[in-house]
Amino acid sequence: MSYQPPTPTIARDGDSAIILDQTRLPYRSCTLRLATLEAVATAIRSMQVRGAPLIGATAAFGVAIALNENADDAHLAQTLDTLAATRPTAVNLHWALARMRERLLPLDPSMRHEAAWAEAEAIRRSDFETCTAIGQHGVALLQRIATQRDGPVRVMTHCNAGALATLGPGTALAPIYEAQRRGIPVKVWVSETRPRNQGLLTAWELRQAGVRHALIADNAAGILIARGEVDLVITGADRVAANGDSANKVGTYLKALAAKDNGVPFYIAAPLSTVDFSCPDGAHIPIEDRGADEVCTITGENETGEVVSLRLAPAGTDAPNPAFDVTPARLITGILTEFGICAPSELSKLAPESA
Amino acid sequence: MSYQPPTPTIARDGDSAIILDQTRLPYRSCTLRLATLEAVATAIRSMQVRGAPLIGATAAFGVAIALNENADDAHLAQTLDTLAATRPTAVNLHWALARMRERLLPLDPSMRHEAAWAEAEAIRRSDFETCTAIGQHGVALLQRIATQRDGPVRVMTHCNAGALATLGPGTALAPIYEAQRRGIPVKVWVSETRPRNQGLLTAWELRQAGVRHALIADNAAGILIARGEVDLVITGADRVAANGDSANKVGTYLKALAAKDNGVPFYIAAPLSTVDFSCPDGAHIPIEDRGADEVCTITGENETGEVVSLRLAPAGTDAPNPAFDVTPARLITGILTEFGICAPSELSKLAPESA
Repeated sequence: MSYQPPTPTIARDGDSAIILDQTRLPYRSCTLRLATLEAVATAIRSMQVRGAPLIGATAAFGVAIALNENADDAHLAQTLDTLAATRPTAVNLHWALARMRERLLPLDPSMRHEAAWAEAEAIRRSDFETCTAIGQHGVALLQRIATQRDGPVRVMTHCNAGALATLGPGTALAPIYEAQRRGIPVKVWVSETRPRNQGLLTAWELRQAGVRHALIADNAAGILIARGEVDLVITGADRVAANGDSANKVGTYLKALAAKDNGVPFYIAAPLSTVDFSCPDGAHIPIEDRGADEVCTITGENETGEVVSLRLAPAGTDAPNPAFDVTPARLITGILTEFGICAPSELSKLAPESA
Repeated sequence: MSYQPPTPTIARDGDSAIILDQTRLPYRSCTLRLATLEAVATAIRSMQVRGAPLIGATAAFGVAIALNENADDAHLAQTLDTLAATRPTAVNLHWALARMRERLLPLDPSMRHEAAWAEAEAIRRSDFETCTAIGQHGVALLQRIATQRDGPVRVMTHCNAGALATLGPGTALAPIYEAQRRGIPVKVWVSETRPRNQGLLTAWELRQAGVRHALIADNAAGILIARGEVDLVITGADRVAANGDSANKVGTYLKALAAKDNGVPFYIAAPLSTVDFSCPDGAHIPIEDRGADEVCTITGENETGEVVSLRLAPAGTDAPNPAFDVTPARLITGILTEFGICAPSELSKLAPESA
């Protein structure tokens, strides 16, 4: 019995893709058809799909969609460029596009359309297997804690690195789903993750899966860790540098500092495709700056159940919005990939030989 | 030319007090008349008034209001107990109530009513002078940085420790207003301070005062500090223990960790009445837990300009909400009081001889 996601984050339907529109979650569960390259690029940019692995897979589906009508060299190159420009930090995007290019470029244009769909499907299947392997390796961390204390294993996470961020059981949440499957009691501390509140997505998927959890303001992470209410922290990553420095959703660095200050282990869970061996350290990871409106407005349900946006601060407020921060390798206990857990300093042993 | 607050946070009007209702800010600037002890207790509990110094002063006004009709020993004792039970963390509340008790108890009940108003007024005046002195001492920190670099001095703060939290120019913001008055260019990083978003109050009062500022998600504090975009951090405090450990709005500890990790100075600004010399360290400071609704809902302005609340997470969501955290003295560069700046370890030299 393996993990079954409640709703697929992306699936092929003929010559288009059906996605779960994550900008409507957790208030509405709506799907959206992506039938053009422009629609795919918009979906990634506007975060209708989000999470590094899902962004990569969606880009692969986008290539297949774009080649529906024209698969010549120029159009393929333009497609890859358009998708590469959607979001700067998640390296899986570039990894998936490089894989599509490598697979498709040697082929005759007449063969590319079907080959693109096949490769996108292969990426989808492999992401499911990768997530499952991360869960299998990571559950050992929770199992060890479960044998040492009464009560549930208390895991803190940040943002959403679950089923909604991937095409399987997630990265950071995969060990939690695996623990749940094995009957290991777990409780997840879910940080709301302002400004985009992806923690509400995490709470939504944990609720669907019946995993015990509590929602907190991002600011509360420090006192909960200091009070001894957190056994370990696991987050995903959008890009891991060769030395182990890890870019993830803004706020991750603060949790890692609090974990370090209190002797609580801090893990990054990510597929190896998130590791950018060409990037020496965190200072070289580009950090996306998003719009002020994400800080100055917020979306929720009003008392009649309508989903509406509210203004928190006046239009024109100066509100810089870096979407990610970098957690230095020295704060990271281990990096959890589909190949197991390693110290950040040992990451280079996993580098492909060509790198 | 000294600082003039845009709107008084509390003022006497006959036998009642007029407060600025801070639960309506920054969307509406409404005043509220407090004419009974119950109204005063509710105002403190529901955060219509907030900020440690203002909570203390409001409690003093509350004693005067409660003694309007009956000033006998039993009623005085009951009044002090009722007000002491409103909020647990801010020690200024207990400081102000002790001061009222000490002044009033020796008097004949017939003298207490007017004496209570006089003492409350004295607390109001002395808070103004205290804030002004904090500004005078603290501006030296900004002045020093201004001589070392081009561009504005970049100060990060948390929550609201400004005019709205006091009866003068604030605590953490007092040096900023004084710098503005002296023509020292300043830029303030304002953290929104979920779950109650008191950062929006800080942005509101800085805007009124014409001080340059930028609003950020709480999560962004770490990367801004790590990027070198912050010259110093100054926050207020709700209770400082004798060893310098300081309780302040939840999230302060995370900013202090990030400051320490990057060699950025971190200061606590507070009147000496916030220092609890009877409390040996942070582990002895009671931390208020507030309701889940503050995490699961949010207030803002809708597109027609109405102030409404939205639900972010389903009713019944488990959402623990510690309102404060403790920043250990080892992370604090200095404590800024009306008597100057001292290292946390030197705080005991300021203890009253009776302590």
